[in-house]
Amino acid sequence: MHRFKNLTRFSSPTTAKFTSPALFSLQNLRHLSTTAAAAAGDAAAAVTPASGLEPTKKTDKPRVVVLGSGWAGCRLMKGIDTSLYDVVCVSPRNHMVFTPLLASTCVGTLEFRSVAEPIARIQPAISTEPGSYFFLANCKGLDVKNHEVHCESITDGLKAMNPWDFKIPYDKLVIASGAEASTFGIKGVKEHAIFLREVHHAQEIRRKLLLNLMLSDVPGVSDEEKRRLLHCVVVGGGPTGVEFSGELSDFIMRDVHQRYSHVKDYIHVTLIEANDILSSFDDRLRVYATKQLTKSGVRLVRGTVKDVQPKKIVLSDGTDVPYGLLVWSTGVGPSTFVQKTDLPKAPGGRIGIDEWLRVPSVPDVFAIGDCCGYLESTGKSTLPALAQVAEREGKYLAELLNKIGKAGGGHANGVGDTELGAPFVYKHLGSMATVGSYKALVDLRQSKEAKGLSIAGFASWFIWRSAYLTRVVSWRNRFYVATNWLTTFVFGRDISRI
Amino acid sequence: MHRFKNLTRFSSPTTAKFTSPALFSLQNLRHLSTTAAAAAGDAAAAVTPASGLEPTKKTDKPRVVVLGSGWAGCRLMKGIDTSLYDVVCVSPRNHMVFTPLLASTCVGTLEFRSVAEPIARIQPAISTEPGSYFFLANCKGLDVKNHEVHCESITDGLKAMNPWDFKIPYDKLVIASGAEASTFGIKGVKEHAIFLREVHHAQEIRRKLLLNLMLSDVPGVSDEEKRRLLHCVVVGGGPTGVEFSGELSDFIMRDVHQRYSHVKDYIHVTLIEANDILSSFDDRLRVYATKQLTKSGVRLVRGTVKDVQPKKIVLSDGTDVPYGLLVWSTGVGPSTFVQKTDLPKAPGGRIGIDEWLRVPSVPDVFAIGDCCGYLESTGKSTLPALAQVAEREGKYLAELLNKIGKAGGGHANGVGDTELGAPFVYKHLGSMATVGSYKALVDLRQSKEAKGLSIAGFASWFIWRSAYLTRVVSWRNRFYVATNWLTTFVFGRDISRI
Repeated sequence: MHRFKNLTRFSSPTTAKFTSPALFSLQNLRHLSTTAAAAAGDAAAAVTPASGLEPTKKTDKPRVVVLGSGWAGCRLMKGIDTSLYDVVCVSPRNHMVFTPLLASTCVGTLEFRSVAEPIARIQPAISTEPGSYFFLANCKGLDVKNHEVHCESITDGLKAMNPWDFKIPYDKLVIASGAEASTFGIKGVKEHAIFLREVHHAQEIRRKLLLNLMLSDVPGVSDEEKRRLLHCVVVGGGPTGVEFSGELSDFIMRDVHQRYSHVKDYIHVTLIEANDILSSFDDRLRVYATKQLTKSGVRLVRGTVKDVQPKKIVLSDGTDVPYGLLVWSTGVGPSTFVQKTDLPKAPGGRIGIDEWLRVPSVPDVFAIGDCCGYLESTGKSTLPALAQVAEREGKYLAELLNKIGKAGGGHANGVGDTELGAPFVYKHLGSMATVGSYKALVDLRQSKEAKGLSIAGFASWFIWRSAYLTRVVSWRNRFYVATNWLTTFVFGRDISRI
Repeated sequence: MHRFKNLTRFSSPTTAKFTSPALFSLQNLRHLSTTAAAAAGDAAAAVTPASGLEPTKKTDKPRVVVLGSGWAGCRLMKGIDTSLYDVVCVSPRNHMVFTPLLASTCVGTLEFRSVAEPIARIQPAISTEPGSYFFLANCKGLDVKNHEVHCESITDGLKAMNPWDFKIPYDKLVIASGAEASTFGIKGVKEHAIFLREVHHAQEIRRKLLLNLMLSDVPGVSDEEKRRLLHCVVVGGGPTGVEFSGELSDFIMRDVHQRYSHVKDYIHVTLIEANDILSSFDDRLRVYATKQLTKSGVRLVRGTVKDVQPKKIVLSDGTDVPYGLLVWSTGVGPSTFVQKTDLPKAPGGRIGIDEWLRVPSVPDVFAIGDCCGYLESTGKSTLPALAQVAEREGKYLAELLNKIGKAGGGHANGVGDTELGAPFVYKHLGSMATVGSYKALVDLRQSKEAKGLSIAGFASWFIWRSAYLTRVVSWRNRFYVATNWLTTFVFGRDISRI
């Protein structure tokens, strides 16, 4: 009877036609017309010149400015006590990428959204507290003397608006801006290869892979051209390159054979590495990985890339390797932003930090994650560019800042004699990598030289998956990742190119 | 103990280092080098000139060529008997879009992938049968005399490959290429407004909406500019425009208020329609929809758009309406392809068909969906451009073609005197539209003039959702849509801009 009850809510159809002038008048729009002048004018006219936030007063909460939204920055924001600090995050993306699962999204094992966690979920204060913000912007420079960060907004090709500059004064500055993919100065890498560091990279890889699969089925393509289009070349045999190759061979064996059976014999994966694959792993695990990848049809080639052209790469021994898809994952180096700042540097060009993750000689500036390394004076060597390291540094620094804040040292130049406590110590929990076909490697040794447990096979694949499921930040994404895995297992991967 | 068992599979670590030359040699790549010459040459060199499929022989299965992958084409392919016919589908996208749910994806209620169904899942033969194919291409012209379709491949901006032409001879041709969004010749619509017909439109709307939300929070944006950036204008009060406005106001009330609380008072939705909203619905339902939308904060404006500029639209009475996001959903008209073909036309410029969905005077050519309409000679009026109509036509034609095929008339010019049976009759099952806030309208009348059941409110929202869940094509997507709805209900919408 519910639906009849609903009907009684209607007034009589003959009298209730849209006669109310309030509903369909232009009155509601009048107040908007005041902006028409601005709209018609210059794209930058609507932006106040030399704009920005005001410096905090002694009566305000101190402001922590975080540059970046990767593992380090997000873990820091998650841990920071927002009753002590206002948090302002500046980043070109409003989400954190769960990088260890990114390779799985390229072939549809996981959805893109399952590996992206909005910052507003990691630290809700940035969207609800009056003094906390997320700014979609790039940091252009630091004025450490005046405790200010200079930023430029990102308008992402918006026709009606130009990017503008603004300033954010900070009480504490945390640089967590990450690193950039290395190209080793090889020509053509940036133009023709795809990196695998952001969700849009994974989207581009997926679109290109599906496009090549479809194009090679269209009449008129020669056999050689089909073989080129469907030759997927991965350069770099670190965990990312190995995991992507493994996912790709899974996709080929299960989904391409079923959904693109006309061209299934033309698709191949080649992994090119100058040294050993997974060089940081235990020897036995590397042998196991090599066997597994070879068994799944991945060709392992030892070589160095000299030149990248639109349809082929040239190795240093002169061999031409035609490709249809080229994924570049040869590690990272200091970003342009880090190179340009005149902060003290660690060996290798990262921002130099002491054992409390402070940038010495510059008050109130800290650095965490891939953008920083220990100064030579600490006697410690730079930690590897791993999510694990960044996450642990973010957690440590959040606790340190909370401690300083509680002791009343949150404001600019306010640390004084606050006892900082124990310095940061990194304890390696082990390394993991999948090699496709429900197989993974888990290396639980403390370091390359140490002895310890190494596991390979289905058991470690299961450990790998469970470890990731518990580390994906929100319950929403845990649920989604589990759902994606289940669906892929039951129905296969999705192949629509959207 | 399982993991130790795994370890025993390793050979001794000292002897098993990468010493096998087969693993890391360039030998595997040698055969690929033969393509290097082609790769270095012209982008089109790898494509055979004047390529295409061969005409079928009397001993082959006859070939049905389907142009398009919308509701009509996909329903036809699903129903066709692939033991009688080979199926070749030509379309610029490899999936069907479940259009009634598209509006929900713009604000993250549903994921994009949940509303896209790969054609290879709808009709697996296209990827497994040796004579059936999917070609990512546009149809450029018909040669009905020679029973041939002329196509151009889509390389989608691929740098290393130019599009090429090819021909497909057909035994039966089904034109299901759909319609195009109408702009009524208004200047600036194509440049500045976003349609809502494809998944990439929904992605564009989502990215722009989230970008505007973030930009309006960056320091330096004036209040007027914030109000403009966050003014979402929808032009067209049909089901798509109303559903999108409803979804948008749900998103604002639930998610923007929580996740973008700094700017929540600046965001508004305006729906502009020249006549009544939902004009095909029962009067009482329209009144209900108006009330619901107004209650959710959607401003309903009666007006006609005269001009679209980058930051504002101008109505015919001269009012300026500044906007940050403009969605255009004023219905559809004949596509350029349909306009260009010299097939007989129905009133309104669609391809003219008879009551068996044949294009008369042209043997073996059929048309279904939004691209066609009854010829004046049939005495019937053109059916509305609804998914429901397209789906029913596709189903009917699949059965008709199967009947012809069984009677041995599958080959070109082979229909002869085959008894075609009953003509196509369309029976309207009712119309549905959501208005946000778990409310929907269901109009079960046969036509605008008829009497019948009309329901509005939560009960009909439930019917609407259930009806859609059972009509989403695959079990995979049914499962995903249900999961998306559940997650949105429990956790709210996702706001990462990827």
